[in-house]
Amino acid sequence: MPLIRFDMIEGRTETEVTKILDISHRVIVDAFQVPEGDRYQIVHQHHPYEMIIKDTGLGFKRSKSVIVITITTRQRTHEKKEIFYEKLVLALKQECNIDPADIMVSMVVNEGEDWSFGFGKAQFLTGEL
Amino acid sequence: MPLIRFDMIEGRTETEVTKILDISHRVIVDAFQVPEGDRYQIVHQHHPYEMIIKDTGLGFKRSKSVIVITITTRQRTHEKKEIFYEKLVLALKQECNIDPADIMVSMVVNEGEDWSFGFGKAQFLTGEL
Amino acid sequence: MPLIRFDMIEGRTETEVTKILDISHRVIVDAFQVPEGDRYQIVHQHHPYEMIIKDTGLGFKRSKSVIVITITTRQRTHEKKEIFYEKLVLALKQECNIDPADIMVSMVVNEGEDWSFGFGKAQFLTGEL
Repeated sequence: MPLIRFDMIEGRTETEVTKILDISHRVIVDAFQVPEGDRYQIVHQHHPYEMIIKDTGLGFKRSKSVIVITITTRQRTHEKKEIFYEKLVLALKQECNIDPADIMVSMVVNEGEDWSFGFGKAQFLTGEL
Repeated sequence: MPLIRFDMIEGRTETEVTKILDISHRVIVDAFQVPEGDRYQIVHQHHPYEMIIKDTGLGFKRSKSVIVITITTRQRTHEKKEIFYEKLVLALKQECNIDPADIMVSMVVNEGEDWSFGFGKAQFLTGEL
Repeated sequence: MPLIRFDMIEGRTETEVTKILDISHRVIVDAFQVPEGDRYQIVHQHHPYEMIIKDTGLGFKRSKSVIVITITTRQRTHEKKEIFYEKLVLALKQECNIDPADIMVSMVVNEGEDWSFGFGKAQFLTGEL
């Protein structure tokens, strides 16, 4: 169920975007141990001036390849979150050559009752999930 | 106060989008028992490849009419949330012929102090709301 | 770390948008007492029919200049939130002549472990922040 938004600056091809989504999904399935079909991804592409992503003074230098990944999910342990962050950056570097400085993630937690995946049902409450 | 984002694939007319917003608003006013003026809706339209919305293995088949509805709201009972899910899907089917498999909802809860509706005031704290 | 989305109706120039971002950032640095580099801003521009922003019956009249500001942040005191709302509206009025009725804010709170600013690390957990 994690619902994931990817905000990035325009300029990538459809193939490049799809590859980023595929990799991110593979990593989240692995890190959060969710089913393969647990895939809910939305991409927003922006003009360069529409994204200002700094570094809180950490010493990162972002490029125009920066991706902000915002996730809504039921609670996960901080261990799983850390594994996700690590593996995501590693995979995007290895397979898309995206600089680890260009990957920012922010999560928000909700509850089972806050999800309806279709048919007007709250599947975490009905026992379907 | 629910603030609601509608993510959908491009291709609908303005009239069709507006109808979806009108219906969704009517349902939320009814299910959450909020005032008619409690309407805060934002639409994001995407290229098809920018939305990958699967089914967690529930057996749904989504179409290009899929709509992901994300809601930020103060807490509601799970009964009200379930009524909202049910009525929304029913109304969108009856009035727009949208397949119940194509409606996904995710909510995030915040507090009264997290809202300022205008004029720089937190109206839930000032007593205006 | 506040991550801030600005949803607005298309029609502003890049310069006008950038000025709104600059002012908002200055206000949040001041109100939340965060570092200057703690800047994470994303803009979404919409067709007019994609944003319906009413007033919960408070008596506001919105214009096409309406801006919906949604913030994800670690918890802040309600005093700091109220200072932010007040100063933001004041600054946007004084410097951009945006009507205080046109500024709506909604916040969602998360935890330190929910942030990775780059390099696959959760910098609030590692002690880097």
